[in-house]
Parts: sequence; structure tokens; C-alpha cells
Amino acid sequence: MKHLVLALDTMGGDFGPRVIVPASLEALDLCPRLVCLLVGNPSMIRSVLKKFNSKYINRLTIIPSKSVISDNDRPSQAIRVSKDTSMRIALELIKSGNAQACVSAGNTGALMGLSKLVLKPINGIDRPALTTFLPHQNKGKTVILDLGANIACSGSMLVQFAIMGTVLSEQIVGIGNPKVALLNIGSEESKGLDNIRQASKILHTISSIRYIGYIEANDLLAGKTDVIVCDGFIGNITLKTMEGVIRVVLSVFQKSEEKNTIYCYVIEHIKHWFSKIFFKKFIQLNPDRYNGAYLVGLHNTVIKSHGGANQHAFTKAIIQAVHSVERRIPEKIADRLSQMLSYQNNYY
Amino acid sequence: MKHLVLALDTMGGDFGPRVIVPASLEALDLCPRLVCLLVGNPSMIRSVLKKFNSKYINRLTIIPSKSVISDNDRPSQAIRVSKDTSMRIALELIKSGNAQACVSAGNTGALMGLSKLVLKPINGIDRPALTTFLPHQNKGKTVILDLGANIACSGSMLVQFAIMGTVLSEQIVGIGNPKVALLNIGSEESKGLDNIRQASKILHTISSIRYIGYIEANDLLAGKTDVIVCDGFIGNITLKTMEGVIRVVLSVFQKSEEKNTIYCYVIEHIKHWFSKIFFKKFIQLNPDRYNGAYLVGLHNTVIKSHGGANQHAFTKAIIQAVHSVERRIPEKIADRLSQMLSYQNNYY
Repeated sequence: MKHLVLALDTMGGDFGPRVIVPASLEALDLCPRLVCLLVGNPSMIRSVLKKFNSKYINRLTIIPSKSVISDNDRPSQAIRVSKDTSMRIALELIKSGNAQACVSAGNTGALMGLSKLVLKPINGIDRPALTTFLPHQNKGKTVILDLGANIACSGSMLVQFAIMGTVLSEQIVGIGNPKVALLNIGSEESKGLDNIRQASKILHTISSIRYIGYIEANDLLAGKTDVIVCDGFIGNITLKTMEGVIRVVLSVFQKSEEKNTIYCYVIEHIKHWFSKIFFKKFIQLNPDRYNGAYLVGLHNTVIKSHGGANQHAFTKAIIQAVHSVERRIPEKIADRLSQMLSYQNNYY
Repeated sequence: MKHLVLALDTMGGDFGPRVIVPASLEALDLCPRLVCLLVGNPSMIRSVLKKFNSKYINRLTIIPSKSVISDNDRPSQAIRVSKDTSMRIALELIKSGNAQACVSAGNTGALMGLSKLVLKPINGIDRPALTTFLPHQNKGKTVILDLGANIACSGSMLVQFAIMGTVLSEQIVGIGNPKVALLNIGSEESKGLDNIRQASKILHTISSIRYIGYIEANDLLAGKTDVIVCDGFIGNITLKTMEGVIRVVLSVFQKSEEKNTIYCYVIEHIKHWFSKIFFKKFIQLNPDRYNGAYLVGLHNTVIKSHGGANQHAFTKAIIQAVHSVERRIPEKIADRLSQMLSYQNNYY
């Protein structure tokens, strides 16, 4: 059985090795092919590993790093002095051929900048984008990008996101000729910000993209489109707004302030039973379940985990990376893009 | 009993007089002091009124208008040729002293521009903002603005919104020394767009504002702050994202694809019972219930209804206008602002 090697930035995110090391053990249990390179402070990693006494220790290697890029660091500055950081070393392991993908819960801007610097974007892409798959009401999935890698985007960057989103929808969700929409505050062409209107004009001229116009945020989960394109600021706000609302919804099922009577016991049971029906529909909107956003537009797989991810959530992000390598997603995006670009010169 | 006179733009929104005329009858039933001036196409209004044969007809006056500003019109263009439109005439009725407030479900940009032109902003305010009150997890309410009146905002505009939000939280929600936060994609000072960082710097220097820094979108409903400030594009996207998620949540309780067996009958009853518990918590996040956003920063009350509002939702918007007039909200904002400004010269 051929190994699949992932480099994990164990120092990134709110909890570092405390969460990421046990998550790697959980992932090793789930994927027999997986080998993990744990990049970080060796003594911190070892002290967590000791607690677990895992049988998968032979599929783990500790790669020492000296420093960490914190969430407070300005990406441009952090990248300049990134040489000995866990994030940089994890990415360099891909470049040197020692790992096939990387997972990090660290500083989003730095991860995006370093990935671009170390791994290089695919031909035709200026800047990689963060993307995920939103479950929608019609039981399918919508590709949404960018989720925060690029705070301010030009019209042509949004067009590139539309192309990458199309490829992801085709290759991962399995949609033939997927519909693409730009997120905006109205459906009329005159609405919104300049970059969105500019992207709309260009997209209307690209025959290989099935552009359907603007979509409003109240239709994000309605399944009206297969790909939703927005800048990283809007994407991040939108996803976190959903997360906040879903957390409030889930809290209804989790909390109980009632006293312990037989009546309450029955109610708790009905709540539990109902929450099962509910979860069936919302399982993938629960942030613990959908954790792991693809950084697309690079020659290799880089997965960004939520900074506050717990163990199970980080495991999900590792599994995403495994799937991306197994399905050869970056290669497929590059192939499809080069086809599109050969038909579509001077499209932006 | 002294009358309270509202001018209603009956031609705005997706449904026009069909929804707005019955909504006015519903509001007249709820508020004995209310008198409505129905601005619009007289024959269309009369044909709807005929169907209802209401006993409140003596508290209604039809004010003829010749044209309508559509949602597709560019605000700047629409305003130039607005002379005979229902929206303009409704606002002029306030200016001439014939009405105390206006409610419209029409083009947001045009309503904002025309209100500014006809009614003038309060001293110290460059541009009015759309605002509403979000219920939060700690059973209070958060003032959020702007929701779409100003798509692009400078740092100093965001500061003005922070001041207006503070006054609204004090005067309407009843919070003493309310906390104010800027919506951003991280909590660190270096995060986000230039205008947000600039506003943050200014807000730190204003002692009469209790500025607590950035808030992320997953905490919108967490009750961590009393006022949330953002530009109109972000505000609109955020509110509509919430609306979309809530609609999906509510659909779980409303739809049933099961067949009609005794088992399903029992399930439907439990769903109904559970939805009651659920609604109790979420009633104010249901778009039909929270309809009606204040356009604040003007000398008079202007309420913007959701374009797709149904009858009950539009009635809610009328009731908002009644409350604003009764509580003298615009006057209180102006008073508080002039106090703040006299202490705080050159703050932006």
C-alpha cells in the first residue's frame, strides 16, 4: 500500500499541538495509508503524544520548527521572517517532495502568501482562493469562494475564482456545466460594487462559464446556483454569519434550564429525538463538521482549518486533504484551466 | 385624540398596493390614532380598497402619483426625474408638514438619496444609515447599521454610524453607555479593510463612545456588543445571510414529505409543538417579524420595508414608524448628537 504523506502545521490555530496531535492520531486511525509529518516544537508535540500512547506512532514523524506565525502578525511582515516557522517548513516539505499536501489552522493571510510563494499558483491564476462546499436545500452542494484569502479583489480576480469554482463543482461535486453566480446586494446589473459589476461584464463574455448573474445572500442555501463567487472579506463574513446563526440554532437543542422532573425528562427525550431529524438536515452547516477549506489555484493541496477548530474538526480538515490528494484535485483544476485558457485567450 | 399621520409609498416593493393597502388597514385597526396617506395610482388603490370594504376608510386619504421608481433604476438617475413618483411625493408630505413619517418598500438607494435631499440630514451626519435591532442570545437587542443605504463607506462615515447607533441603543433599547463594535474578519487591529481600521483608530479617541474593538460575524447574535457598525454592502449581505439560514431552519418545521399515516400524524404534532418552543427563541429573526429598518440621521422618521414584504411584514414596518414618531426618535438622536458634537469637536 502506497503511503500518502501530509505535513501538519501543529503550531497554528488557537490550540496548537493540544488539538492537532490527537486529531492526527484520529486521522491515522481512519486512513490506513496516511503518514503525518508533525511540524512544530518537538517537546510540546512529544508531551501530547505521551498522553495517548497511540499504536500509530510509527506513521508519525516530528519535524522540528523554531517559531510560529501568530494570528496577530501582519501577513507581509510574517512572510519575510518565516524561515523557521512551522507553517513555512510544512509548505517546504511539499516543495521538496517529502509531503503531498499541507494542513494548517494558522494565520490565513500568511498561509495564502506563503503558499503562493513556496508552491506557486497554477498558470492563469493571480492569487489562490479559499473555498468550501455549502450544502443547499435541494440536497446538493454549492462551491463558494473566496472565503478570506483575498480581502480586496479586482473584477478579473473574481473571474478567475469563477473559473476555479466551475472546475471544483465539475470535479468534486460532479455537476456537468455548473451554474455560476456573483454574490451581490441585488439582482439588477446596476447593483453593487464596481469590481462585482466589472466581473459580471467579463463573465457574460466567457462562453465556457455558465454565468447566471447575481445572487443575493438570502439565497445562499437555496440551491439556485452551483458556484458562488465573492471577495474574501464578504465570503468570510458570510460564512461566519451562517456559523453564528447555526450555533444559536443548535443551542436550542443543547441547553436546558428546566428542573429535573419526569415532564422535563420526557421533553429532553423528544428534544434529543427531534435534534436527530434536524441534524440530518444541518449536519454540514455545523462548523465542527464542515471544517477544512481548500486553498485552490496552487499546484498542490493546501487545506486551511478554522483557527478555533476542536480535535474532530481538525480531523475533518486532514481528511479533506487526503481526499484532495487521492482525487488529484489540483492537477484536475490545472488541466481544466489550461483547456479553458487555450479556448479563451484575452478573456480578462 | 391627536392624529398621527403617515405617508405610505404604496407603489414601492414587489407587490405595490396589493400588499400595502391591506397592510395599512391592518395598521389602522391596531393604532386608533393613525391616519394613512396612501400615495400612488388612485385607481389601483381604489380597486384594492373595494375588496376590503373597511370601516377605517375615513382615516385613509389617497394622494395621486404618476410614476414609480423601480428597483432596477439607478438611484442617481431616478432621483433626477423623481418629481411625480410615489416615493418623492410621500417624502414631500413630511416636508410640507402634512405627514409625520414615511414608509416605503421601494428602491433603497433612491429612498436614501431622496430622503437626504428632501428631509436633510441632522447636523454632523453626512449620510443617513439603515438600521435595525437584532435579538441576541442574552435576550437583549443589538443595533446594527448600515444595512444597505451606503454601499461604500469612509472611515469617518463608519464613525458617524457608531454615534447614531449609540444614541439608538440608549434611546430605543434602553442601554446605558452601550458597547460599540466594528464588524470585521478578525479581532486584531491589523485585520480588515482600510476604512474599518481608520474608523477603529478614530473611535479609540472618542471618549463618549464605549468602543470595544472588532467583532466577527459568528458573534453577531452572541450579545457581546450593543451596537454593530459596518458598511451598507456588508450589512445587507449579513442580514440576508441570516434571513436565508433562518428560512431553511423554519422550513424544517413547515415541510413534510411523509405520507399520511398515524405515525406521521403524531410526528407532525410533535413538530408543531417543538416549533412553538423554537419560534419563541427565533421569532424576531423571522424576516416577516423584524421587517422595517429605520433610515436614521434625518430630521424625520423614514422606514424602509423589505421589498418582498408580505402584508403582515409591511404592517410591522408601519408600526415601527408609529413608534418612532411617538417616541420622538429623530429629535432624540439630534439632541444627543449635538451634545456629543459640542464636547467632541474635530473628532473626524
